[in-house]
Amino acid sequence: MAEALAGFRPARRTPAEPVPLDRALHRVPAEPVTAPHALPGFARSTVDGYAVRAADTYGVSEGLPGYLEVTGAVLMGAEPAVTVGPGTAVSMPTGGVLPPGADAVVMIEYTQQVMPGTVEVVRPVAPGEGVVRADEDAAPGAELVPAGRPLRAQDLAMLAAAGLTSVSVHARPRVTVLSTGDEVVPPETAALRPGQVRDATAVALAAMVTQAGGAPAYGGIVPDDPSALEAALRGALPASDLIVISAGSSVGARDETAGVVGRLGTIWCHGIAIKPGKPTLLAECGGVPVIGLPGNPRSALVVFRLLGVPLVHVVGGCTASPAGSPAGPPPEPTVRARLARDLPSAAGRLDVVQVRVRDGVATPVFGPSALLSVLTAADGYVIIPEEATGLDAGTEVDVTIYR
Amino acid sequence: MAEALAGFRPARRTPAEPVPLDRALHRVPAEPVTAPHALPGFARSTVDGYAVRAADTYGVSEGLPGYLEVTGAVLMGAEPAVTVGPGTAVSMPTGGVLPPGADAVVMIEYTQQVMPGTVEVVRPVAPGEGVVRADEDAAPGAELVPAGRPLRAQDLAMLAAAGLTSVSVHARPRVTVLSTGDEVVPPETAALRPGQVRDATAVALAAMVTQAGGAPAYGGIVPDDPSALEAALRGALPASDLIVISAGSSVGARDETAGVVGRLGTIWCHGIAIKPGKPTLLAECGGVPVIGLPGNPRSALVVFRLLGVPLVHVVGGCTASPAGSPAGPPPEPTVRARLARDLPSAAGRLDVVQVRVRDGVATPVFGPSALLSVLTAADGYVIIPEEATGLDAGTEVDVTIYR
Repeated sequence: MAEALAGFRPARRTPAEPVPLDRALHRVPAEPVTAPHALPGFARSTVDGYAVRAADTYGVSEGLPGYLEVTGAVLMGAEPAVTVGPGTAVSMPTGGVLPPGADAVVMIEYTQQVMPGTVEVVRPVAPGEGVVRADEDAAPGAELVPAGRPLRAQDLAMLAAAGLTSVSVHARPRVTVLSTGDEVVPPETAALRPGQVRDATAVALAAMVTQAGGAPAYGGIVPDDPSALEAALRGALPASDLIVISAGSSVGARDETAGVVGRLGTIWCHGIAIKPGKPTLLAECGGVPVIGLPGNPRSALVVFRLLGVPLVHVVGGCTASPAGSPAGPPPEPTVRARLARDLPSAAGRLDVVQVRVRDGVATPVFGPSALLSVLTAADGYVIIPEEATGLDAGTEVDVTIYR
Repeated sequence: MAEALAGFRPARRTPAEPVPLDRALHRVPAEPVTAPHALPGFARSTVDGYAVRAADTYGVSEGLPGYLEVTGAVLMGAEPAVTVGPGTAVSMPTGGVLPPGADAVVMIEYTQQVMPGTVEVVRPVAPGEGVVRADEDAAPGAELVPAGRPLRAQDLAMLAAAGLTSVSVHARPRVTVLSTGDEVVPPETAALRPGQVRDATAVALAAMVTQAGGAPAYGGIVPDDPSALEAALRGALPASDLIVISAGSSVGARDETAGVVGRLGTIWCHGIAIKPGKPTLLAECGGVPVIGLPGNPRSALVVFRLLGVPLVHVVGGCTASPAGSPAGPPPEPTVRARLARDLPSAAGRLDVVQVRVRDGVATPVFGPSALLSVLTAADGYVIIPEEATGLDAGTEVDVTIYR
């Protein structure tokens, strides 16, 4: 599993496209964005108070206040009409432009207007105090956001502050979801004939693709017939950055997928040491990565979450990286909980165990892998790593919470 | 802060509306959704093998195999054309319909075709083995998804399996973002006059609203003038489920907001023991919750994330609940890291400290709260709780990661 995650690295990346800022959340910049000018652009007061020459306040105290002549007031959003000379002060709102001649702002809390036109100052300020410099948020040309990291709310704020209302991002990866299986019918089928099941997997895969920043497309339901699957796969290739085959559950369907994918490209691996999800297939066909998922919906969703979602991020330009570092997709939410019971596992195989979490206790949800209800009853999952042979009841585990 | 989170609970909830399943990810069901019929709807094989009467396999072993006459084969997606009588077996694909008369499926691994029409069985099966019952995924009327919990990928799969391609969910809360301040100009302003700043906060607030499942609307930029703010607020009320006022940074702007909001409704609190973000205002005007944010963008974004985002969830029908339980929004992603340096804090005040995380070490990012770059440089934040007077260097902390 670790080998599959680290080793299968298709070169495909989506091209850049411009998006307006208010639709850029979670989009991935194709290149670093730099500041077109200094930000905030002017020396700005960070407090309400008086702009002064710092030297005029040296040595003042509660016992020995200084007195300055107030020569005017700065208004919000306007250029100061006055300058600050020796022995004078100008009234300042938070966020106002520091007037020429001033090098600091005394907080209003440390002043008192003793008579009209004169302010008493009881604390000294150092040069730069109560002020942000014109380029303190960003110098011209400074990097505002890096390439390869999905944009967060505050990144949009910074770009807006710089007047950058459009940003060049990787296009959303187009992910085609192909369902296969003679028994599979569209979800909107009102009455099922005996043996038919509605396609449950495709809509869930599409949702995970969307969550990962991709643009899902339904490739339809293909019967258990190699030539039909080959035609569907060929048809999907030109308009896909990634193809997901949600295989039928029959042995025929499973074998056909590998055969067809092998004819159209290169199989990177077929079979992964993960439970559920062993029959997973990873391949590349004409430069397009292809994932063949196990036959039952539950296994398919588990595998796609662990292997497919990171691939969507990579193809969409995310720079892969460890959790908590600035590049790559952020980690998923987790809670710590104690296992309610022993979980056996075979060494050399990664186990994904569905759990419910209540009051700090994680209770495994078991059931045949054909059952979707095991997944819907779960709040999250616990990974039993390859090297472990199981986890004892009472062990503290990290539960990754579904969202 | 805890009081504000737990105590300010506006009654407003958005009404229900139908959405198609493929646009229902993260939407909040307005009522529980139940199964219209049993799922999978027929007894279904979970393995490739042979449908049998379990009793016909009792006592068989590698040394003493049993022999059954193969009377036919079940095809995927079709009703069985044969029944299983004593001493007979029917070939089964995974996912096929269990034929009448059979009560178990022997895995193909434990069988061998010894001659045409006869299969050798080397392991006994119990009734029900290799089979899911017709109602094992869901009995008719069983709850498929609860009300009040945002739909996850697997919930969509379950609804699709049941043929429910539309679901009744709470409408997205309409959140109007009002920006105020004489100095604030739209982000698309190409050239700033001295003292002007572009509205950085609104686009970031809108992004957080979207992330929380809301529908943001820009209410425009209002000058520092009480009657203009009152008119804007009155205008926004009818089409809003929540109003966010991103105040100007001047003392005038701060005072005006409380005055105007107080005239139109009831102020629940003004001033919260949080740093940054003290001047936050929570109110209700004509049944619409109103949040007044602090004047500078950084404080505004910190406060909205902690107080505003949960409110959007609540108004949108999420059932509030502790992390890891099935109702309510899921927890945010976190990583554990050790503090690179001491963090002082005052007891009785919640501190939100921005940090970068590298190799398990969280390094605080400091700077005046007027600077957005402090937020964009951070990977996440650390909460110093009300009761703490600071955290020592080396302390292990949970860093909530921005996404």
